[in-house]
Amino acid sequence: DGSKLDYGGILDRLNAGEVVVGDGGYVMQLERRGYVKAGHWTPEAAVEHPEAVRQLHREFLRAGANVIQTFTFYCSEDKLEISGNVSNISGAQINEAACDLAREVANEGDALVAGCVSKTPCYVKSHSETKVKAIFKKQMDDFLKKDIDFFIVEFVDHVEEAEWAVEVLKTSSKPVGATLCISPQGDMHGVPPGECAVRLVRAGADIVGINCHLDPLTCIRTVKLMKAGLENAGLKAHLMIQPLGFHTPECNLGGYTSLPEYPFAMETRAMTRWDVHQYAREAYDAGIRYIGGCCGFEPYHIRAIAEEVSAERGFLPPASEKHGLWGAALGMHTKPWVRARAHREYWENLLPASGRPKCPSMATAADDYEK
Amino acid sequence: DGSKLDYGGILDRLNAGEVVVGDGGYVMQLERRGYVKAGHWTPEAAVEHPEAVRQLHREFLRAGANVIQTFTFYCSEDKLEISGNVSNISGAQINEAACDLAREVANEGDALVAGCVSKTPCYVKSHSETKVKAIFKKQMDDFLKKDIDFFIVEFVDHVEEAEWAVEVLKTSSKPVGATLCISPQGDMHGVPPGECAVRLVRAGADIVGINCHLDPLTCIRTVKLMKAGLENAGLKAHLMIQPLGFHTPECNLGGYTSLPEYPFAMETRAMTRWDVHQYAREAYDAGIRYIGGCCGFEPYHIRAIAEEVSAERGFLPPASEKHGLWGAALGMHTKPWVRARAHREYWENLLPASGRPKCPSMATAADDYEK
Amino acid sequence: DGSKLDYGGILDRLNAGEVVVGDGGYVMQLERRGYVKAGHWTPEAAVEHPEAVRQLHREFLRAGANVIQTFTFYCSEDKLEISGNVSNISGAQINEAACDLAREVANEGDALVAGCVSKTPCYVKSHSETKVKAIFKKQMDDFLKKDIDFFIVEFVDHVEEAEWAVEVLKTSSKPVGATLCISPQGDMHGVPPGECAVRLVRAGADIVGINCHLDPLTCIRTVKLMKAGLENAGLKAHLMIQPLGFHTPECNLGGYTSLPEYPFAMETRAMTRWDVHQYAREAYDAGIRYIGGCCGFEPYHIRAIAEEVSAERGFLPPASEKHGLWGAALGMHTKPWVRARAHREYWENLLPASGRPKCPSMATAADDYEK
Amino acid sequence: DGSKLDYGGILDRLNAGEVVVGDGGYVMQLERRGYVKAGHWTPEAAVEHPEAVRQLHREFLRAGANVIQTFTFYCSEDKLEISGNVSNISGAQINEAACDLAREVANEGDALVAGCVSKTPCYVKSHSETKVKAIFKKQMDDFLKKDIDFFIVEFVDHVEEAEWAVEVLKTSSKPVGATLCISPQGDMHGVPPGECAVRLVRAGADIVGINCHLDPLTCIRTVKLMKAGLENAGLKAHLMIQPLGFHTPECNLGGYTSLPEYPFAMETRAMTRWDVHQYAREAYDAGIRYIGGCCGFEPYHIRAIAEEVSAERGFLPPASEKHGLWGAALGMHTKPWVRARAHREYWENLLPASGRPKCPSMATAADDYEK
Repeated sequence: DGSKLDYGGILDRLNAGEVVVGDGGYVMQLERRGYVKAGHWTPEAAVEHPEAVRQLHREFLRAGANVIQTFTFYCSEDKLEISGNVSNISGAQINEAACDLAREVANEGDALVAGCVSKTPCYVKSHSETKVKAIFKKQMDDFLKKDIDFFIVEFVDHVEEAEWAVEVLKTSSKPVGATLCISPQGDMHGVPPGECAVRLVRAGADIVGINCHLDPLTCIRTVKLMKAGLENAGLKAHLMIQPLGFHTPECNLGGYTSLPEYPFAMETRAMTRWDVHQYAREAYDAGIRYIGGCCGFEPYHIRAIAEEVSAERGFLPPASEKHGLWGAALGMHTKPWVRARAHREYWENLLPASGRPKCPSMATAADDYEK
Repeated sequence: DGSKLDYGGILDRLNAGEVVVGDGGYVMQLERRGYVKAGHWTPEAAVEHPEAVRQLHREFLRAGANVIQTFTFYCSEDKLEISGNVSNISGAQINEAACDLAREVANEGDALVAGCVSKTPCYVKSHSETKVKAIFKKQMDDFLKKDIDFFIVEFVDHVEEAEWAVEVLKTSSKPVGATLCISPQGDMHGVPPGECAVRLVRAGADIVGINCHLDPLTCIRTVKLMKAGLENAGLKAHLMIQPLGFHTPECNLGGYTSLPEYPFAMETRAMTRWDVHQYAREAYDAGIRYIGGCCGFEPYHIRAIAEEVSAERGFLPPASEKHGLWGAALGMHTKPWVRARAHREYWENLLPASGRPKCPSMATAADDYEK
Repeated sequence: DGSKLDYGGILDRLNAGEVVVGDGGYVMQLERRGYVKAGHWTPEAAVEHPEAVRQLHREFLRAGANVIQTFTFYCSEDKLEISGNVSNISGAQINEAACDLAREVANEGDALVAGCVSKTPCYVKSHSETKVKAIFKKQMDDFLKKDIDFFIVEFVDHVEEAEWAVEVLKTSSKPVGATLCISPQGDMHGVPPGECAVRLVRAGADIVGINCHLDPLTCIRTVKLMKAGLENAGLKAHLMIQPLGFHTPECNLGGYTSLPEYPFAMETRAMTRWDVHQYAREAYDAGIRYIGGCCGFEPYHIRAIAEEVSAERGFLPPASEKHGLWGAALGMHTKPWVRARAHREYWENLLPASGRPKCPSMATAADDYEK
Repeated sequence: DGSKLDYGGILDRLNAGEVVVGDGGYVMQLERRGYVKAGHWTPEAAVEHPEAVRQLHREFLRAGANVIQTFTFYCSEDKLEISGNVSNISGAQINEAACDLAREVANEGDALVAGCVSKTPCYVKSHSETKVKAIFKKQMDDFLKKDIDFFIVEFVDHVEEAEWAVEVLKTSSKPVGATLCISPQGDMHGVPPGECAVRLVRAGADIVGINCHLDPLTCIRTVKLMKAGLENAGLKAHLMIQPLGFHTPECNLGGYTSLPEYPFAMETRAMTRWDVHQYAREAYDAGIRYIGGCCGFEPYHIRAIAEEVSAERGFLPPASEKHGLWGAALGMHTKPWVRARAHREYWENLLPASGRPKCPSMATAADDYEK
């Protein structure tokens, strides 16, 4: 399973106890770079501006990612149509172009390609297993025309829809990872994380976990609940996590969309690289071995994961050539007070100020969703 | 003066009353992308990873920049040597590669290329006009082998050094802009901004202003002092501004380097696009017509400048295809409370929360420098 | 039961559905006024400076309190001895003087006198029911020499000790209220609030609830758990609440003592009168009918309770002669922008700034206690 | 000059180099205690509830105050009439009762009595020297029926009105102190602090300085400007300061009335006793020898002044019997992490959290006044 004979497929790696570093967030970063439209969040840039997508893939690879995810978020036919953002480009074109880009960059290093599907509008609208599965099948068929190593189902908030996706993708005989965007309170119908994990594994998922919607420490709590659920059920699966790169301590079910700052004023909430060190360590200690990021994770955040687990992996990522560990390269700064910051204790203990004395530290999340 | 016959050179444009949109910050953004080493901040990526530099140039162009600055920060021979970060690549190689990259991308749109020089270690060390001018001359000669439109002297905190640079660069007969990284309190020797401006213009600068070190509203105050100084002296020059994309209300002389968060925890201080709208308007209202950014200005910040002055310029930048003005594209978001944010009043009035209740809003800046 | 024939005793009032307004905090307020020593927190001022105690009693009475608690906190013989703060004055002297002061002031208005006992060092040290009950018996006997209406057991964090206190005090045939200083997580041995309430009522308590240690909204949550416990057990009792007048959102088991600000920098956390309006309404809506305050509740906070429930009670307290409801008296202020604040909407919606931009909004509570 | 033969009058003390500790704020504290109506801020409690005024006087005396100010704020006939808060009690009655209360308490310790006058509505309304002086004369005559030691003119924001007051009061041959409630920017007509000081001394003031409206560190800056003005003019006078006990870093001309929190949500801004230590030291170091407080200074804040200057004065105030210096008495607290706070370093370095993560740290002050 998996085309990378030299290094092994995703399950070989995880079975061998390796730490797999995931890549970061595409849509929000490419929005800032000028290639994705917020609100729509569709991935037409894979066709329109392949150089931009390729470059971001490369930066994640260089930062240490072992997996390059196809840039196919929200790229089901029904979502593209509703979004109304893309004309003259079909979903199949995007899916195929995205596979090519991911493969091209993955082959530049030690990385696998994951074909990614996300939640469909059809699920909430029709609640029809037949229709939803047909949509996932169509997107899978696009991927299977190309060379991908495994699948990831991500950003699904109803476990039932994720089960359907897993069932479809498993017909390919490739490994499947499934990450829900839910809180410790469970999915949108109140199914608790532990039960979600059990249902996903029973549907065929090889790897389960959480992505997006909430900050790293909250997502770790949710994955721990999933892990406990699997243990209680006597099941085994690999665990993965790709949380937000933003601090969202006041969020519950709705995740970051219920924050007033979403999506155009999230800057203040961005994690520092040192926050990511803490996250990577806590994820590792929780037994999670596929550790990446979602919205808000830029290349330097992925590098911080790779640097934090460099002892476990035995090597640093390429981009660490341009990074002094724990700020070490500041030792040659011209200003003495900056040179004094060239060590771990400084950055681990810093509480960063926002420079915004008229702003609060926590927001009131949207009431209608935070029940 | 300037090779862009169709559109005119920088002075033609400014003389015609156009608003010139500058590009954003390179070194901090490329650090995050994995190509620049913090502490050193040298631009060897122009040779090592041209695709990364090219892509960032393109994003700024696409965001609306009329000027592509060569990625030649700290690229004087003496600085490269002290930094010790680069081996087997000469300063001339970097300068020339950077010119080629800037020209390649500028020609993809309506942009000019500015060859950039910054402060030299030699100035503080030797205080020798001969030596410092020789360094600037060498870097200028590298540029003149290539096709550049004008020069920018930037990130200089002693007006005397900037005068020397201007005097050298003016021997090329190309237009010269000069921006100091000083506060309203004046340069490192206490020369007030008004006097700095007068001296720079008398040295030959066609455009004067401020870049880096402090937040936009502070830099506008400093440029206003420069403008007043010129008026008092009966001099005329165009004004330019390329401030930090970070909030630094507690900083004085030392600028952001005296903040505890510099350079690895600046996330919380990042400006939102809406902060940039306010900045661009205030800069415009202050009579500044060359409006760009420095460290912290990502492509979407430059787009926000271009969008704010789109009525004055008569057009939107290419990247606005992927941006609803004032958040308009949120009107198609799936969640009703996010759709409710698709208008200007919402974003103009938002006070973003940091999600960090254990962090203060202002820091104590480094004492030894804030006197 | 109770000596106030005209108005009825505490149970007559509560049985009749009246809202009983409690008094506020004595030890922290008298510390600020110069009569109590922080750390010791003993009530020798009842003997040393009766005028100061009398005046604070009067202010609470005037603010609307229906109960004047004897100033006898930590006035068990064993606590006084350990504290080492008082010499030449016996516990009996203090207890008796405190009863006289409370009675004198209560008789100036419509108030009852509650004799108060609090936790004893003996409980943790000896865990001897015989010894602890002897201590409570001694203090009760002091009170019974004087004219008090009922007893309150307060500031006890082990339900067992509170049960023993109730059992002793019930031998007097006077009504007994019992308030624990515990969090929603339960008492120091992990007994949940609902079970605590059941045990206290079974021990003989007529009124049960919570006082001190945590902020009002947290204490309401705990009382709700007590109420649910009683209902599940088929028991009935009146509910009372006397929380901190400070915001302590980050506190758990240890209460405010685990905050770095305790006890000498609690100013920033003080509740406004408008916070108290919200508290009083939520307490009332939760079915609590004895509503007062503990540390941090100054006379104007008690007035705010009385004003919030004035419709239910049918009258305003005497001190409202000197208070425009919801800021109404600002209508005659000399400055127009202050006059504009003379209404409820203004104060209900205000988010007060601290004027301390270098301080965080939340603290890291003492680790060793917050498990 | 002054009736206290044993200790000497106010000028004897200041001439001898003593540090004179002032008392704290009356109207805001008595509002919280239930005796003063916010908005009106008139002192009828001196007649209606003398026990409450007497008790607060006592607490300030006990905290170390050397001066007891008569509780006669806003007690000019024209202000009482406009306020409309008082009926059946004349200004003369209040003034005389207030003098008796102040004298009674001052005689319990080592304190002088200062008869206090404040700004009159008549000044702004009529701008008539004759009318305004007649009002001050009437109030002075009330005081002269009683035994007072000297006069204080306070809370005046036009230096001209303060001059008139001083000229009237100097006809009594008693010493006169004059404090303006102005910012470093000067009085309401833009007269700079240095010039204000010169004019007050030329009018006859023996002591000049600042009270109310702004926080301690700002008021110290203003007094320093006054001192410099006097030195430049070759004049000499004693300096006094009685600032707010609140943090108001964002305030300018309008003082705290322009804050959204004024007057009913000022809790978050209250100074800690440790803030007061810093203030007292900086005031002392600036050469100010009459150091007290205004609104927001409670008895424990005055005690903190007295404790900070105890080495200079040679003694501690009576209330320090109930206060361990720098928190020393916490050494006997039952909880080990509280015992760990029993030292100066802890409290000097603490940045207190507000427990209000949804509140900003700075407010936007009323626009119309902050120009």
